[in-house]
Amino acid sequence: MILTAIDHVGVAAPDLEEAVAHHRRAYGAEVVHREEVAADGVREALLQVGDSYIQLLEPTREDSPVGRFLARNGPGLHHVGYRVTDCAAALARLRAEGVGLIDEQPRPGSRGTTVAFVHPKDHLGTLVELVEEPR
Amino acid sequence: MILTAIDHVGVAAPDLEEAVAHHRRAYGAEVVHREEVAADGVREALLQVGDSYIQLLEPTREDSPVGRFLARNGPGLHHVGYRVTDCAAALARLRAEGVGLIDEQPRPGSRGTTVAFVHPKDHLGTLVELVEEPR
Repeated sequence: MILTAIDHVGVAAPDLEEAVAHHRRAYGAEVVHREEVAADGVREALLQVGDSYIQLLEPTREDSPVGRFLARNGPGLHHVGYRVTDCAAALARLRAEGVGLIDEQPRPGSRGTTVAFVHPKDHLGTLVELVEEPR
Repeated sequence: MILTAIDHVGVAAPDLEEAVAHHRRAYGAEVVHREEVAADGVREALLQVGDSYIQLLEPTREDSPVGRFLARNGPGLHHVGYRVTDCAAALARLRAEGVGLIDEQPRPGSRGTTVAFVHPKDHLGTLVELVEEPR
């Protein structure tokens, strides 16, 4: 089994501060990290949940993947991030098994991680991000 | 902060065995628990991911929540389960904060847990299940 933990659930939200405030009110959750990921067109806030995170995502442009998701579906669960020990090795395995990939190579994610997205088609309609922790 | 872990991500699938086989092939994931939850109209298979689970859900009837989700959206991420120490206390807090609930009282979930669902409306469109582990 190459997945070692649920790293995060990614939740698309039109207003990041409102989403943070909602999670604080509902659960007492606090932001442990903030980052803008220009390549993905998102600003994110991470809320710690045990050893995992809720990743709140606000698009910085309408034509970004999260922007298009919001326009189509409204706010909601956007993807799930699974932790792996070695992102490149995980991609090689998935490729060998014929699983469709969005990212053919690992790339930088937020907070120093190395990540790659798996295509939801033929993957139970579920957008999966593989997350390798910083060394 | 009342959420102690991501207990599981719930994935709706039209064919449970095909979904299990896909996860075995892609990730080497193995089933650690199977159960039919008649009240929810689902058969589920749990795959262990660290201290959390991927919960694969196949509807046992079309008019169940997961059956209606599949008819509307196709397979995909259905809900996220967060672990709490005390499900009744968590519900009381959410009610006091004006968060809409599907289950006003805790009820039995799978594998001996006590659970309650939070309404996705005004909750970032995200269906959340609060999960209290068996004693």
